[in-house]
Amino acid sequence: MIKHIRIDDRRFPLAAGAGSDAIHKDPVYSYAVTNLVDDSGLVGVGLAFTLGEGNDLVCKAASFYAQQLEGKDIEEIMSDFGRLSRALSNEQQFRWLGPHKGVVQLALASVTNACFDLWAKKRGVPLWKLLTTLTPEEVVATLDLSYLDEELTEEQAKTMLRAQQEHANGRMSIIEKGYPGYDTSIGWFNYSDDKVKENCKKAIDAGFNAVKLKVGSEDSQRDVRRAHIVREAMGHDAKIMLDANQQWTLNQALRICEMLRPMNPYWIEEPTHPDDVFAHKVLADAIAPMKLALGEHVPNRLIFKNYLQAKCAGFIQVDAVRVGGVSEFITVSLLAKKYGVPVVPHVGDMGQLHQHLVLFNHISMGHEALFLEHIPHLQKHFVHPVIVKNGVYETPQEPGSSCDLK
Amino acid sequence: MIKHIRIDDRRFPLAAGAGSDAIHKDPVYSYAVTNLVDDSGLVGVGLAFTLGEGNDLVCKAASFYAQQLEGKDIEEIMSDFGRLSRALSNEQQFRWLGPHKGVVQLALASVTNACFDLWAKKRGVPLWKLLTTLTPEEVVATLDLSYLDEELTEEQAKTMLRAQQEHANGRMSIIEKGYPGYDTSIGWFNYSDDKVKENCKKAIDAGFNAVKLKVGSEDSQRDVRRAHIVREAMGHDAKIMLDANQQWTLNQALRICEMLRPMNPYWIEEPTHPDDVFAHKVLADAIAPMKLALGEHVPNRLIFKNYLQAKCAGFIQVDAVRVGGVSEFITVSLLAKKYGVPVVPHVGDMGQLHQHLVLFNHISMGHEALFLEHIPHLQKHFVHPVIVKNGVYETPQEPGSSCDLK
Repeated sequence: MIKHIRIDDRRFPLAAGAGSDAIHKDPVYSYAVTNLVDDSGLVGVGLAFTLGEGNDLVCKAASFYAQQLEGKDIEEIMSDFGRLSRALSNEQQFRWLGPHKGVVQLALASVTNACFDLWAKKRGVPLWKLLTTLTPEEVVATLDLSYLDEELTEEQAKTMLRAQQEHANGRMSIIEKGYPGYDTSIGWFNYSDDKVKENCKKAIDAGFNAVKLKVGSEDSQRDVRRAHIVREAMGHDAKIMLDANQQWTLNQALRICEMLRPMNPYWIEEPTHPDDVFAHKVLADAIAPMKLALGEHVPNRLIFKNYLQAKCAGFIQVDAVRVGGVSEFITVSLLAKKYGVPVVPHVGDMGQLHQHLVLFNHISMGHEALFLEHIPHLQKHFVHPVIVKNGVYETPQEPGSSCDLK
Repeated sequence: MIKHIRIDDRRFPLAAGAGSDAIHKDPVYSYAVTNLVDDSGLVGVGLAFTLGEGNDLVCKAASFYAQQLEGKDIEEIMSDFGRLSRALSNEQQFRWLGPHKGVVQLALASVTNACFDLWAKKRGVPLWKLLTTLTPEEVVATLDLSYLDEELTEEQAKTMLRAQQEHANGRMSIIEKGYPGYDTSIGWFNYSDDKVKENCKKAIDAGFNAVKLKVGSEDSQRDVRRAHIVREAMGHDAKIMLDANQQWTLNQALRICEMLRPMNPYWIEEPTHPDDVFAHKVLADAIAPMKLALGEHVPNRLIFKNYLQAKCAGFIQVDAVRVGGVSEFITVSLLAKKYGVPVVPHVGDMGQLHQHLVLFNHISMGHEALFLEHIPHLQKHFVHPVIVKNGVYETPQEPGSSCDLK
């Protein structure tokens, strides 16, 4: 039984330049942390990610949701979590503050993720193991599929998962091999050309063959120059992702993507405003076969559904510490699977939680095991930091979702 | 000069049943109020509207924005308000909490509206008069048109406003005549059939020929029955709007709108989730010539742009206490004008602020003077409550935006 709740406002200043992009020049990586203190002695820990200022607002909203869990048993909660999630996120006064977006949705993520963490800890298994051993019925019972009835009913979701069951065993080999990673930290926006070049060498030495560069400079020639620096350093076969972090208008994006085409980017990420489905559609059609990666700032399943329906997302970057938590992450992954679009999460959690979720997506849902973003900046603050060796995530074995903070 | 800032968390419980809809069963109408205390002795008052729980979060976020106005002169602020609005709403850490939606966008509304209120008070005129006497250049200087460059550049906005200048004088007659109203309070969700019937008679006696009924009942036969009750009570020529407050899934909406068609609704409002542009598009095409009214929960110009581009909004219900304030309200109105779609605001402000804005939209932008929602429940709390006589808003004459609370 959940005895009491504690919400922590944790902020971690970064080294100079780290985490910077075209829009966010000086982030302070921060977590609104929900702790569900169980009478078994276990503590379920859930994260929502922010960039510092306003993290307290998310904590306050998380507290509003979390207090409704006091006195409840986690197995009972999780046996019907979809209904609870729907009730929380539609609380009739609080809902006005979203609905299903912004501060309140981040708060829902924090609380939801704490529930999944406690659930796995209570069963004494890592979250990936818990999720991959649930029946399709048990998985779907954790999902709120409301407003999706024309695309994904409960029955359809179960059918999708059942159809994958016979292939799941064959895909378990990923547990031994580990899930591939890619390195986001070679090319933060404020890093000098020299530092980017040096970081590429380090990335290669660390076994990465896929890296990300921040673009969106005021002078787009700077973007082009740096993109070619990375291509040259990483070689012809490397996957190089370019991330504009919403810096461009549609017209700018149309122009600058053409300038970047010769460098052969694997994707262009967040070219413009995350709410603007139509702009992304126009852009995706114009720059094909170059692809867009979207989702870091997309707050819920409805907007992801729209992006998928518009057929403009080459990669879905749903982040379980931005949408309403693990539960909505799974829903979005099912929608993406239906549309045949890979899920490559943005990792506001630094990959701690997502290393579990991508294993589930691969094993139980049949998503391609493409690669998972790797950002090392907060490793020292986690009790069980991700282990990435030779560019590959080692499968976590500790019970829970690896989100305990020191 | 703005000497200091005060943010008030004001909540006003309603009489039983008032304000209820299919989703929000028991709202507490609330305002996050920004007070900009000027050294002239004037106080600029700006509102954001919520339904109670979480109003404190909006206050806290408003305080973050408002503190950046201390020591500044309101005329200086307003001469370049678009740039300020853009800077505030993109503050690089706080932005993560949206961007441009949810709690932080409501907070921006509160602060922005206080600026416009103080501006008008400082000039000693009602806001409608201030706005209608600004030059196109001065109006556009208050707007943040970022991410709109493929639809509405600053030059295009100025051109649109200039083209209307020669017609503006002819439209000033609305000041004498007053702006028509419609009555939302006849048919709250929790009201009995008898009370709805009785309220219709009262509405007719009060001079209204346009009313709104809340639908979205679990038993859709209840909706149909009540819609026909209103039609019978109001007569053949009355405009009757049906408001589902997001209660339906797409499939439900498709089915129930057909059931409601024989009653000839003037519009169907918020049929489903406000983020789901594609669902609205499918629905709008299916139920034409019935029309959809959208926008009560749409937080910013980008999503409105998408709704307009999708051509699924028959009426745009942008609310200046939901989007980023008066400034973004004007931007959305310009976009709607470009697409030839009427603007009929949702009035979280109870019409206090919007009575000014619809006059500006009509006189200076050439929008049709259709009607403005009227909700009387908070009248006693305002210093200068709206005056609606014979179904028509009397033009306010007090300086400012009529948002001072007792």
